[in-house]
Amino acid sequence: MARWKVGVLTASDKGSVGEREDKSGELLKELVRRIDGEVTEYQVIPDDQSTIEEHLILFADMKRCDLILTTGGTGFSPRDVTPEATKAVIHREVPGLPERMRAATLANTKFAVLSRAMAGLRGKTLIINFPGSPKGVKECFEVIEEVLPHALQILIGNTEH
Amino acid sequence: MARWKVGVLTASDKGSVGEREDKSGELLKELVRRIDGEVTEYQVIPDDQSTIEEHLILFADMKRCDLILTTGGTGFSPRDVTPEATKAVIHREVPGLPERMRAATLANTKFAVLSRAMAGLRGKTLIINFPGSPKGVKECFEVIEEVLPHALQILIGNTEH
Amino acid sequence: MARWKVGVLTASDKGSVGEREDKSGELLKELVRRIDGEVTEYQVIPDDQSTIEEHLILFADMKRCDLILTTGGTGFSPRDVTPEATKAVIHREVPGLPERMRAATLANTKFAVLSRAMAGLRGKTLIINFPGSPKGVKECFEVIEEVLPHALQILIGNTEH
Repeated sequence: MARWKVGVLTASDKGSVGEREDKSGELLKELVRRIDGEVTEYQVIPDDQSTIEEHLILFADMKRCDLILTTGGTGFSPRDVTPEATKAVIHREVPGLPERMRAATLANTKFAVLSRAMAGLRGKTLIINFPGSPKGVKECFEVIEEVLPHALQILIGNTEH
Repeated sequence: MARWKVGVLTASDKGSVGEREDKSGELLKELVRRIDGEVTEYQVIPDDQSTIEEHLILFADMKRCDLILTTGGTGFSPRDVTPEATKAVIHREVPGLPERMRAATLANTKFAVLSRAMAGLRGKTLIINFPGSPKGVKECFEVIEEVLPHALQILIGNTEH
Repeated sequence: MARWKVGVLTASDKGSVGEREDKSGELLKELVRRIDGEVTEYQVIPDDQSTIEEHLILFADMKRCDLILTTGGTGFSPRDVTPEATKAVIHREVPGLPERMRAATLANTKFAVLSRAMAGLRGKTLIINFPGSPKGVKECFEVIEEVLPHALQILIGNTEH
């Protein structure tokens, strides 16, 4: 059994009605294995702020995910509201993760500065927004994967390290 | 005719009563041509939070600016409240732009870390705070000008790129 | 007499009941001398949000500190709430200082991205969160000490520089 319960939430209007394959969500399922995580919750939902909030709360409070990774909805499109949904449900912000993801991926794409991704803590759950594209998901995950296990350990109250 | 309607808002107590020439505002009028923008709205107002908010709303909602660039009021002086006015009127934050402007201009001035500049989206309008000095305006504009046209395209719902 | 009145506030459950020596607070007392500061207020308190808020307000409004440096409570532990207390009492945010501290100390520790430190202005007082460890305190202080005197000058309304 994997160490961490992970929820993957894909915000995509097209994906939610079956018009687009969720490659980024599938990729996240693979990637979390590298930090001894297992996707126990997964959903593709429309880019609707209330719907995103409800699923974040469901995954965190009821399903007890240690980590929730979202993909999609972090850009400038009128329907991109994943960061706003995230901000509404977190109790404590973690600005350093999106800061670092933007700064580090700038070498790959100048558009990294336009990512509005957020990260934060809801109770004992860490929530992190990723971009919508598989390429962006992979690049951002690689920037922070090294520190995730430690972050999750501290979050559950294990301060031995 | 230029592609983008741009509003330039200068927050300056001295400028608003004619005691200081608005060199930064004039410079922004020149700079936006490089991204196929035209300044259709321009005002020099005092460093008063309500007044700044009212003008941001006017430029965004009534005058339909695609982009609003402010200059001034982003520092530590007691009257510097442009970021607070901006935060009050935006619907969605864009943290990556000021983050990048601060990080990139650090090579020019160690005081870049003291800039409290914000950026965000109000409806289909992108609002970005710039420093008060012409030197700061030029340096910051050059950091982000490359991504602005793409950002504005996405914001109006044009996702072809 | 030193130029700046500095408050040092240590958030530490163990420290507040005498179970841990406050090495970080003691270190901050030494470090502020380098910017012509003197610690006029100092307290070790538990990691309780209301208690932290009350002390920040006391140091800023009643004791008239020019600068308040906190240490501790910026991580992922359930009791780490110093940034939340700081956010609740500041009037204006200063995002560039924690951004820069995280980016610059990344060379020393990959866990720098997990710091949730904030900085902001309450009236004429600058409040900055530092990590809990003496090593982290020293590294972060060295990143920003060069700009602190200028920041404090501007904050009290002295714009000659």
